Amino acid sequence: MWIRNAWYIAGWASEVSSDHLLARTFLGEPVIMYRAENGSVAALEDRCCHRHAPLSKGRLEGDAVRCMYHGLKFDPSGQCIEIPGETNVPANYRVRGYPLTEKQNLLWIWMGDTDLADPSDIVDWPYLDDEAWRFTEGYLHYQASYLLGIDNFLDFSHLPYVHEHTIGTDAFAQNRPATERTDYGMHIRNIATNDPPSAHFKKFGGFRGLVDRWNIYNFHTRGNLLLMDSGAAPVGEGGHEGERKNACEFRHLSAMTPETETTSHYHFGHARNFGLDVDGLDQGVHDTIVNAFEEDRDIIDAQQRIISGGGTAPMLPIAADAALLHIRREIDNIVAKEQQLRTAAE
Amino acid sequence: MWIRNAWYIAGWASEVSSDHLLARTFLGEPVIMYRAENGSVAALEDRCCHRHAPLSKGRLEGDAVRCMYHGLKFDPSGQCIEIPGETNVPANYRVRGYPLTEKQNLLWIWMGDTDLADPSDIVDWPYLDDEAWRFTEGYLHYQASYLLGIDNFLDFSHLPYVHEHTIGTDAFAQNRPATERTDYGMHIRNIATNDPPSAHFKKFGGFRGLVDRWNIYNFHTRGNLLLMDSGAAPVGEGGHEGERKNACEFRHLSAMTPETETTSHYHFGHARNFGLDVDGLDQGVHDTIVNAFEEDRDIIDAQQRIISGGGTAPMLPIAADAALLHIRREIDNIVAKEQQLRTAAE
Amino acid sequence: MWIRNAWYIAGWASEVSSDHLLARTFLGEPVIMYRAENGSVAALEDRCCHRHAPLSKGRLEGDAVRCMYHGLKFDPSGQCIEIPGETNVPANYRVRGYPLTEKQNLLWIWMGDTDLADPSDIVDWPYLDDEAWRFTEGYLHYQASYLLGIDNFLDFSHLPYVHEHTIGTDAFAQNRPATERTDYGMHIRNIATNDPPSAHFKKFGGFRGLVDRWNIYNFHTRGNLLLMDSGAAPVGEGGHEGERKNACEFRHLSAMTPETETTSHYHFGHARNFGLDVDGLDQGVHDTIVNAFEEDRDIIDAQQRIISGGGTAPMLPIAADAALLHIRREIDNIVAKEQQLRTAAE
Repeated sequence: MWIRNAWYIAGWASEVSSDHLLARTFLGEPVIMYRAENGSVAALEDRCCHRHAPLSKGRLEGDAVRCMYHGLKFDPSGQCIEIPGETNVPANYRVRGYPLTEKQNLLWIWMGDTDLADPSDIVDWPYLDDEAWRFTEGYLHYQASYLLGIDNFLDFSHLPYVHEHTIGTDAFAQNRPATERTDYGMHIRNIATNDPPSAHFKKFGGFRGLVDRWNIYNFHTRGNLLLMDSGAAPVGEGGHEGERKNACEFRHLSAMTPETETTSHYHFGHARNFGLDVDGLDQGVHDTIVNAFEEDRDIIDAQQRIISGGGTAPMLPIAADAALLHIRREIDNIVAKEQQLRTAAE
Repeated sequence: MWIRNAWYIAGWASEVSSDHLLARTFLGEPVIMYRAENGSVAALEDRCCHRHAPLSKGRLEGDAVRCMYHGLKFDPSGQCIEIPGETNVPANYRVRGYPLTEKQNLLWIWMGDTDLADPSDIVDWPYLDDEAWRFTEGYLHYQASYLLGIDNFLDFSHLPYVHEHTIGTDAFAQNRPATERTDYGMHIRNIATNDPPSAHFKKFGGFRGLVDRWNIYNFHTRGNLLLMDSGAAPVGEGGHEGERKNACEFRHLSAMTPETETTSHYHFGHARNFGLDVDGLDQGVHDTIVNAFEEDRDIIDAQQRIISGGGTAPMLPIAADAALLHIRREIDNIVAKEQQLRTAAE
Repeated sequence: MWIRNAWYIAGWASEVSSDHLLARTFLGEPVIMYRAENGSVAALEDRCCHRHAPLSKGRLEGDAVRCMYHGLKFDPSGQCIEIPGETNVPANYRVRGYPLTEKQNLLWIWMGDTDLADPSDIVDWPYLDDEAWRFTEGYLHYQASYLLGIDNFLDFSHLPYVHEHTIGTDAFAQNRPATERTDYGMHIRNIATNDPPSAHFKKFGGFRGLVDRWNIYNFHTRGNLLLMDSGAAPVGEGGHEGERKNACEFRHLSAMTPETETTSHYHFGHARNFGLDVDGLDQGVHDTIVNAFEEDRDIIDAQQRIISGGGTAPMLPIAADAALLHIRREIDNIVAKEQQLRTAAE
């Protein structure tokens, strides 16, 4: 159960090359990704139309992919262009080609109706390659549905518990963030003043006293994408609305791409605008974030195991669930509409 | 398929403490067990009522358990007593609490209708903590249905084959035990006179000649519990009805608690009234018994694999199956009645 | 989905002895095989008729097998001949016995209707034990349906791709083999003249120039059995129709026996008539062949994973599929007829 008509993050641009075929499953469908000779990226169904052998066991020949079972060759659109021993290739001999767009250092794939794929719908987010910021890339594989992952994105109340020793503070559990429904999903502002800094901000911001702290989110329902402005500043400097001169700031991206019904790809990254030249700081920031995100994954994968184990009791909502419940309903609505359109088209 | 309204052995009392949450699955339901500050024991559903995260990843806070996903806190009855950021906790916010009774060194759990749970129904068996006897505790995990395990309890005919070199003698295959149906299940007397002692009784009884040997059982259908008086004495001293002065005697407890349809918890223990102070004898007796019980598990897990592999041929009964077939029918009857009551209540 | 009334290769004769019970699953049914005291071979259902314990955990007692759970004893036909503690054994107490025939160094099993099993239907193939030829035995286990395996037998078009560096040459992809439908299945002749030799024939035939090359097959639908005359000779000597004096020749046997719907036993072997006394040549030829067959297995197991992963697109045929598609239809037809007969008999 997922939205099909959306740009999903498929990987980092550096992962695809013209040297190999990268195999990855999205929305239950096996896909290969590679880079053609002109540098453009391509994504094809990882299943030869002939006998369903995986093209990922195949060979890149220039811009084309040859299945290394019986030698059928496919161009980057998925059209078969050679059947060994035959002179004609029927037009319907093809594998599915998926729109794949490289933008900054990210790859975005469209698994839905190709006619609806418009790369200009992909979000603009400067911090991926802004020179004033240093961006580091991360990936975790989840043994859990993407839905449990985005529940977690949309919820601050877990921070004091899951991230007690890393990025959480008690105030997160007490503070009700301001949420605003938007056309793309949800805008969330979680602002705290006079709050003790988390371990994370103590470490990277060097704060000794109380801080004003902010997490300002945009969550995009299509693509399960979270973009965040996160920071802390000494009390009295205006917080996120101040000049942020003594602030410690991060920009963050998180995205859940469904792999199967119960497994997911989690791509994330964070940008900072300080200490760009400090030796080891890239790794230090990255490790701290990964450590916190592994805390999330640990509880979420366990949650999936409990859910997969059965049981019929409903989930009982709490006030902090407002954002995630809204987005869950939004997803249900969009999926139902997509299903209606597919049914009508058949 | 199992009886729900029964006290099942859940573990050894020493396994639960106020330091950690012990996670174990019974009758297909995930459970945590712990000890409150006053020393009493508690068992809760291992699934938070909020988002179904496992409480076993949570934290003991005094007598209460806090879910470490979003911080909901539950008292030992399962009632939610805190939702972070909220002032009121609705009464229906709770996880299921299971009656858990500590008696001597055992924990007994009731997975059925709580109204019917009466701790006075738990069997009295003095040998768990009688000073004249030394009891040692054992546990094996089965990759097999508890039904295959209790088949084995109720059957002596496997002893010469499965336990050829340990606790079996040929006479077990030829002797038809006396069985008597009781209100709790089955009383079984397997008495042999002038029989060569098994390797087990040779080793611990020191017998050189023939013995009179007895295994006198009570099998309790609710709880899949077997209690046994087992011994051997030199021929001519009256066997189990004699004074047992030169006898070698054991008392034994075995219980199968369903974990899932095809896996089980096997708790067992044995008491002896000799050599209580002999160095290493505890371990020696225990190892011998465990060795024999691993022989059972080996064939039963293999039997489960064959059964799970499919095949439609019926099992063909032999005379030695009388006891186990009776108990299988009893279980079917009780399960059907429980199902009727649940259906009627819905 | 498989033909039941067929002789399938069950193993190599050297695998069964009177010392142990060999357990193997064929057509979804667990089987044990052993050798009786007179040297004859026997195959029984690996599931005691009493409580479904596996006989493979049992004990050979002369010609009979004793179940080591409760001691029931079965003769080589599967008839129960002893129930411990009972004097009579009902005639219907038996496990299924499967016709098992040892012929040369192979074991052939019949999993279908016993009345139809005629050992004279087993193929005659002299190269298994002809003194002028050296035969070496091979086995690979497939994580794939036997159907994908025989697709591969019946198809030369994969040779230049799967076996690019071993036994393939480009001509295989371009050459359309001559196929002839026969009563037993298919006769296939793949003849190439003036062709560069494959790595395999270069190595073992010592060819430096072009060769005339042949692969002449008989594929037997019942048993999924391929028998091949394969060779190469210097150009101008008449190829397979010449005297073959300077030829390098092999005879080959390949057979797929279904284990489960998605796993298979692959028995194969190859005979050569040269260098019978050359040290290490047995191993050298064998390793080369196994290397090539592991290439097949690698792509076929991957193909099975893709197919098992779902997807509803049909397989699109190419001209080279003529033989395999014919045999697939033949199998469908025979399976449907067997099913009709079973339904009629019920």
